Amino acid sequence: MQHYPKHYCGVFGIFGHPEAVLRTYYGLYALQHRGQESAGIVSCDDQGEFHEHKGMGLVSAIFKGDALEKLKGGRAIGHTRYSTTGASHLRNAQPLTGSCRRGRIAIAHNGNLTNAAQVRYELEQEGQMFQTSVDSEIILNLLAQPTLGGHENNLIATCHRIQGAYSLAILTENELIGVRDPHGFRPLSIGKLDGAWVLASETCAFDLIEAEFVRDVEPGEIVIIDKNGLRSIQAFPAHKRRAFCIFEYVYFARPDSTIADRNVYKVRVEMGRQLAREHKVDADLVVPVPDSGNCAALGYSLETGIPYEMAFVRNHYVGRSFLQPSQKIRDFDVRVKLNLVKSLVAGKRVIVVDDSIVRGTTSRSRVKHLKDAGAKEVHVMVSCPPHMNPCFYGIDFPDRSKLLAVSHSLEQIREYLNADSLSYLSPDGMVKATGLPRESFCMACYDGNYPVPYDPEVDKNIMDRRRVHAHGLGDELVQEAKQPNLL
Amino acid sequence: MQHYPKHYCGVFGIFGHPEAVLRTYYGLYALQHRGQESAGIVSCDDQGEFHEHKGMGLVSAIFKGDALEKLKGGRAIGHTRYSTTGASHLRNAQPLTGSCRRGRIAIAHNGNLTNAAQVRYELEQEGQMFQTSVDSEIILNLLAQPTLGGHENNLIATCHRIQGAYSLAILTENELIGVRDPHGFRPLSIGKLDGAWVLASETCAFDLIEAEFVRDVEPGEIVIIDKNGLRSIQAFPAHKRRAFCIFEYVYFARPDSTIADRNVYKVRVEMGRQLAREHKVDADLVVPVPDSGNCAALGYSLETGIPYEMAFVRNHYVGRSFLQPSQKIRDFDVRVKLNLVKSLVAGKRVIVVDDSIVRGTTSRSRVKHLKDAGAKEVHVMVSCPPHMNPCFYGIDFPDRSKLLAVSHSLEQIREYLNADSLSYLSPDGMVKATGLPRESFCMACYDGNYPVPYDPEVDKNIMDRRRVHAHGLGDELVQEAKQPNLL
Amino acid sequence: MQHYPKHYCGVFGIFGHPEAVLRTYYGLYALQHRGQESAGIVSCDDQGEFHEHKGMGLVSAIFKGDALEKLKGGRAIGHTRYSTTGASHLRNAQPLTGSCRRGRIAIAHNGNLTNAAQVRYELEQEGQMFQTSVDSEIILNLLAQPTLGGHENNLIATCHRIQGAYSLAILTENELIGVRDPHGFRPLSIGKLDGAWVLASETCAFDLIEAEFVRDVEPGEIVIIDKNGLRSIQAFPAHKRRAFCIFEYVYFARPDSTIADRNVYKVRVEMGRQLAREHKVDADLVVPVPDSGNCAALGYSLETGIPYEMAFVRNHYVGRSFLQPSQKIRDFDVRVKLNLVKSLVAGKRVIVVDDSIVRGTTSRSRVKHLKDAGAKEVHVMVSCPPHMNPCFYGIDFPDRSKLLAVSHSLEQIREYLNADSLSYLSPDGMVKATGLPRESFCMACYDGNYPVPYDPEVDKNIMDRRRVHAHGLGDELVQEAKQPNLL
Amino acid sequence: MQHYPKHYCGVFGIFGHPEAVLRTYYGLYALQHRGQESAGIVSCDDQGEFHEHKGMGLVSAIFKGDALEKLKGGRAIGHTRYSTTGASHLRNAQPLTGSCRRGRIAIAHNGNLTNAAQVRYELEQEGQMFQTSVDSEIILNLLAQPTLGGHENNLIATCHRIQGAYSLAILTENELIGVRDPHGFRPLSIGKLDGAWVLASETCAFDLIEAEFVRDVEPGEIVIIDKNGLRSIQAFPAHKRRAFCIFEYVYFARPDSTIADRNVYKVRVEMGRQLAREHKVDADLVVPVPDSGNCAALGYSLETGIPYEMAFVRNHYVGRSFLQPSQKIRDFDVRVKLNLVKSLVAGKRVIVVDDSIVRGTTSRSRVKHLKDAGAKEVHVMVSCPPHMNPCFYGIDFPDRSKLLAVSHSLEQIREYLNADSLSYLSPDGMVKATGLPRESFCMACYDGNYPVPYDPEVDKNIMDRRRVHAHGLGDELVQEAKQPNLL
Repeated sequence: MQHYPKHYCGVFGIFGHPEAVLRTYYGLYALQHRGQESAGIVSCDDQGEFHEHKGMGLVSAIFKGDALEKLKGGRAIGHTRYSTTGASHLRNAQPLTGSCRRGRIAIAHNGNLTNAAQVRYELEQEGQMFQTSVDSEIILNLLAQPTLGGHENNLIATCHRIQGAYSLAILTENELIGVRDPHGFRPLSIGKLDGAWVLASETCAFDLIEAEFVRDVEPGEIVIIDKNGLRSIQAFPAHKRRAFCIFEYVYFARPDSTIADRNVYKVRVEMGRQLAREHKVDADLVVPVPDSGNCAALGYSLETGIPYEMAFVRNHYVGRSFLQPSQKIRDFDVRVKLNLVKSLVAGKRVIVVDDSIVRGTTSRSRVKHLKDAGAKEVHVMVSCPPHMNPCFYGIDFPDRSKLLAVSHSLEQIREYLNADSLSYLSPDGMVKATGLPRESFCMACYDGNYPVPYDPEVDKNIMDRRRVHAHGLGDELVQEAKQPNLL
Repeated sequence: MQHYPKHYCGVFGIFGHPEAVLRTYYGLYALQHRGQESAGIVSCDDQGEFHEHKGMGLVSAIFKGDALEKLKGGRAIGHTRYSTTGASHLRNAQPLTGSCRRGRIAIAHNGNLTNAAQVRYELEQEGQMFQTSVDSEIILNLLAQPTLGGHENNLIATCHRIQGAYSLAILTENELIGVRDPHGFRPLSIGKLDGAWVLASETCAFDLIEAEFVRDVEPGEIVIIDKNGLRSIQAFPAHKRRAFCIFEYVYFARPDSTIADRNVYKVRVEMGRQLAREHKVDADLVVPVPDSGNCAALGYSLETGIPYEMAFVRNHYVGRSFLQPSQKIRDFDVRVKLNLVKSLVAGKRVIVVDDSIVRGTTSRSRVKHLKDAGAKEVHVMVSCPPHMNPCFYGIDFPDRSKLLAVSHSLEQIREYLNADSLSYLSPDGMVKATGLPRESFCMACYDGNYPVPYDPEVDKNIMDRRRVHAHGLGDELVQEAKQPNLL
Repeated sequence: MQHYPKHYCGVFGIFGHPEAVLRTYYGLYALQHRGQESAGIVSCDDQGEFHEHKGMGLVSAIFKGDALEKLKGGRAIGHTRYSTTGASHLRNAQPLTGSCRRGRIAIAHNGNLTNAAQVRYELEQEGQMFQTSVDSEIILNLLAQPTLGGHENNLIATCHRIQGAYSLAILTENELIGVRDPHGFRPLSIGKLDGAWVLASETCAFDLIEAEFVRDVEPGEIVIIDKNGLRSIQAFPAHKRRAFCIFEYVYFARPDSTIADRNVYKVRVEMGRQLAREHKVDADLVVPVPDSGNCAALGYSLETGIPYEMAFVRNHYVGRSFLQPSQKIRDFDVRVKLNLVKSLVAGKRVIVVDDSIVRGTTSRSRVKHLKDAGAKEVHVMVSCPPHMNPCFYGIDFPDRSKLLAVSHSLEQIREYLNADSLSYLSPDGMVKATGLPRESFCMACYDGNYPVPYDPEVDKNIMDRRRVHAHGLGDELVQEAKQPNLL
Repeated sequence: MQHYPKHYCGVFGIFGHPEAVLRTYYGLYALQHRGQESAGIVSCDDQGEFHEHKGMGLVSAIFKGDALEKLKGGRAIGHTRYSTTGASHLRNAQPLTGSCRRGRIAIAHNGNLTNAAQVRYELEQEGQMFQTSVDSEIILNLLAQPTLGGHENNLIATCHRIQGAYSLAILTENELIGVRDPHGFRPLSIGKLDGAWVLASETCAFDLIEAEFVRDVEPGEIVIIDKNGLRSIQAFPAHKRRAFCIFEYVYFARPDSTIADRNVYKVRVEMGRQLAREHKVDADLVVPVPDSGNCAALGYSLETGIPYEMAFVRNHYVGRSFLQPSQKIRDFDVRVKLNLVKSLVAGKRVIVVDDSIVRGTTSRSRVKHLKDAGAKEVHVMVSCPPHMNPCFYGIDFPDRSKLLAVSHSLEQIREYLNADSLSYLSPDGMVKATGLPRESFCMACYDGNYPVPYDPEVDKNIMDRRRVHAHGLGDELVQEAKQPNLL
């Protein structure tokens, strides 16, 4: 898959380390695949003062010069973001910070609330003013509310008022807090480094900073880390239904991460093997679409014995600033990223493996590229089932109307791609490759079974009110959210 | 005066003009002398959508490229700022915007609230979250509060809850609102352009956009402009004490502005004449410190007949980016801005006229520069009385401890400056030059009579809580507020 | 005068000072009015290594960060430039540097060669390759030529091969060299600072760095400064005709500079007095166009006793980045820079004094501005004669076709300006105000007597060949020369 | 191989295409791996006018905005550069342009002249001035020399005066010229697109722009393309010795390029197979160092049947701006680019394949990373022989003193790497994998047989003279050449 779905968010937190800010920077760096639009770090020093730096663009560009040195303190949270709710400008970059009766608070949020519009409407009626268009600001405001029973009750009350997907890293003047919604849609793990506690969306962040993985934050769990250590609260003791996003295994998470004790690389290789078991095709070579199809293609090759060839060669210098001239060469977008080693495929029967087909335009150009280079047959293999539904929990799929599989039969898609055959991994096969029970997962984008209800009609009128079109707050990247109807 | 006090804020608003945004841009441009740290415009289109662009730096730099074209709509407010409260970073740039039960609101504020800490504390206790460190955010939050009796009551209630100096331009989805505090500390005028209503801190903004001056907003007045025209509410009908900042006439306002029917240029020339009447010195030439001393020096020359010579020559290319190398020439700062035409002053008795002496270091270097060039005598004339007290209403004077006149007698200052004589305009003479009664003015920086009480001790502990040290939000100018003790 | 002629170049050099580079930076800063397009410094360290930094824009912007610290050595030359020959891009920024049989050489050039095309053609025929489009590169190439009799002969030979205007600062591995053409079109002065020799286009640069003025470099003189001190060669002992540009006194030079023992400020005041003697008008006030008309207006006021009023107020924040929107207000360009204190001129008879009228559009808007503000009469006074001819020696006047006085009678110009009267200073009066004999000057732009012949037809075909249209070499300012026909 | 050798240069040219500039841009884009420091395009329009744009950094960043649109014309050359001679600043960016008796000329050069210092010295003695520190300027100057017999003779004379490696694309006002030195050190191929002729360093550039590969430019050949088509001159008819850089096959060229009728991908897979034939090790998995070791590892796996696993996971967001904090984690540089899928290697015997070891530090960290993750054995396989000698023909190897294999035996290197075994491909095996005779190649970096003599002692004193230390010409990348002793 080349274009869709785009990534969403990564969160990171650390408490009690002399190089807390530097490690947060590295952690965000390892989580950059989860969001490339904006990033930020908020640290807290021993006096309880907060220090913050946010910007648009990549982590490596935002924290240039002496930006890191200005962030003082032994605890910090960080966030890297691709917008799924709210426009993409600096004001909406996270962590969000504020001060309230409980002192300063900063939050970093991965996921998407499903009742944001309703809660925001209620808070506005009570006299709250909202300054951004991100649903995460609702959480910030709820944390400011007076609550009987103090801070912990306030955290629990906040969790019970919001619905949907949220993995949170929260920094107060005294604590680092990790929160995961009761369904556990998004990952959040706990690590340890030189005696300091660490939180990260994915374990690959622990590897880079040389922290040790301890365990996942459980669905519905609140972990509060302060100078006395880590304590845990289960905010939803009666909640049973788990709904981890299976698409994290298929595409989003990095292959070197481990989620729920399953290594992502191995799950993907197994998906390729399972694909081979379900769809055996006679061919001369198996070619991955780099890098998303690498693992599944390898699994397919291992299972079938058909040689694995990296016939697509990446151009490492594309970058986000690559010019797209108006008068461009047809299919140029596809070719500029990946060129073919023509002599490998000329006259051959080629199996090309990718992890998903969303709109189909890229896959179609890919098949054409192979046939132009002389491939005798092109068989397209996809390591997950067809995408049939939008995601309300934090992934930016296009509208249903643009999902190819919604409006086309398998044969129609094959024809559109001009492929000699087209095969998808079955839902059962996908789940089987993970080694986990089907009940563990949210697979709504495949099967339409949404674990948390969502009524887009209610929101439309309410949320429209809140947008201020901010332009150019220190960045060229200012743009409106891509999927306002999903808010 | 070269360094102090630095400027503070200018506000602008326009309702019902097809080029509302462009005129706001020009208006801010004319008000740039009131603040050079950050600026912003918020517009509102016919659908009630808000569009916003803010940045650090000068107006001309912030609205580059197509920034203006993206701001749609026939009404807009703008703000140009030098921070007197809150750190100087993008987050604190105005107009501040938010959405609440009344819909979207944007505010631009000139002045300084004296009970900010107390009101903020109360609001936090009620569950409000604050995201900036500017006192203006308190006004925004108050406007979001539920109030009996609707919108107008809410405006009046807000005015009654806050104290101090505030000239406001407020944009809602349907209205442009102008507000001036009951003392009228800061100016705010009403103009008209092609049938559209305009608000501006100073009338020089009307000149540039070719709007016609109508009248000043009265102290305590709220003017609400919508499609039905302008209506006025007097929020403090019983309030009598006026307190317009006389320092606007002395230094801050542009000479081409007219405030309370007095042209600023003429008032300043009259201050120079009055200075001559009070302090006649035998000399060969009168030299202004450009441009702040131009008018008073001219008045002095006209009154005495001593020739006016512009012996200081400005370097027009200093700019804010001028490098200050560590190993610099002594008194370089002073000489780099103004060089002397040596042959004019060599062997002459020179009267040098400026509008104020705050710390004295610049004036001292200036006298040295004249004597190095061969001046036989140097007589320093100041067109206002000595500054003895800080300002709590929006002007960034240094601490009392750094005000030269607090700790030194007239003779000591003269000696420090190495001048042959030193003369200040008397308080009575200053007032007389304006042609207005003394009761019209706040002269607290000269006489210590503060029209609105202020207790810095109360605030210290409360307001300390609110600061988040934000770094590099799209700008290099990030820095802490200069006068935390004045908050 | 607001727009034309634009400035041209300033040169600076220093030999034998521990802070040579810093002083060069300050010197360029003081000479910034002579060119704002690009600037550069080349220094030479004790090992004879050259260090160079050049850029587009203002001196203060180019030497940011640690740029100065990287320039090592106790001698340096600098240049600030507005292009009169060659396109305005980084490649053409000076000093130009190269290495040749004599080692490294850097040159900074103020002026314009009149036989550039011819000499360049000859050098190309001999096998020289040219990499820029500035005439100064010809001088660099000539300095590389083998010459009998060594270095000094080579310098003399170079001077004899080129014609036109050139004031040069040259840096070799061992020397700083100052050269002025035999007519002395452009100024070049010698100063001394802590035992080190200094060269600068104007003496105001000496003031800023606190150097002592020694004398002017004589027309036709070559001064060679090395560790043994300064020695002088007269390259044109038989040359008699001097031709200093009188427009330096009228407009270009800074008022705090002294040229040929005449202080520029005083000359300008005297021009205003002479103007009053030649053209007495009954009026209520004399208003300068700031800052170019300040001195002459003061002289006019002093001579006539009519009060001097600074009715035009400068906006100090215009800057070069000021946006010029397409849908702009009529005459906005004029008003945005200078606003009027309306109440000063309403109902009054106004004399407005400027130093020149080139195209007339600005002056016309100025008169309109005054009349719109209610001036009863507007009398325009110009402190030099009408411009009738282009300059071939380094000043960027527009084409003859755009010089207002070429195609219009005095009365027609008055009518075009909509002034009640229009008066120019006479040529004799202008010369008289300088106190120097007429034979000292080049006044070709007024009287058409060109001291050095120039045949534009010869050049047209030859020089067309040399242009490479370079775009964006590190700067937005890339553009072609404005007056190719003047090359 | 991660760090060394760095890439050098890519050249491109096109004649007679309506989108010549756009295709050149794409071509440079495809050749970006051959140089990432600076790039430039020079085009020529129908009037013979040249248009040029150059900059520091990546192609995608340099040609932003409307840079391409300003480059007019149906023919163009382009260059992308990593400096091997001369400092890395904008002045030295190519194509170099100039004008001379033959009109305008622009050149783009890949390779390194071995007699640059000598020829430059001779040219300086004749009166030439040099303005850059790149050896390519010598070629530009030679092309400006008067020569008997016209343009073609001049080209041949130039080729005979210079020695070493040069693949050139030259643009004159009427022609596109391709030149390859008589040894053919660097590649240069001819393609055709819609009737237009194209030149490129590698055929992968033809694929991207959809041009058809025609043939390689022969060693010693000059191809002159004008409106009458392509004609060929053999400048060295008697020259026999060929010396193509074998390291292009091993590392430099892109795998999707074809050089001398050999596809680079296939040659590399064959090198891996040959490595397996020479060094069979019993292990559990073969892991490539991505992407440089991908092909050889695949070949090794195919030949041995040991499973291929991509255990190293690239971070795609490293970028050149990645911060290297001072207080960094040990081995961080290595880990930040590639993380390990730990569970793949834990407890396993791992063969890790890379294409070369230069300094050894990266490989050592890599082995440590594998062992930290639990690998039981680590066997390092290198798909070429040990590097023993510097390159004088355009590749930036480090000094001999830093080449690990110069000072260490195989066993010492293995010990240093802490590997369980270490194996290099033999020279014969490397050549065999190409399928070409050994006499075709320059293998000096392996065997010390230099096809063109080089005497570094002669140059040292001469070339030292030519450096001007230019700082900040529009870029931060300014730095001195890395290998002055190799000039």
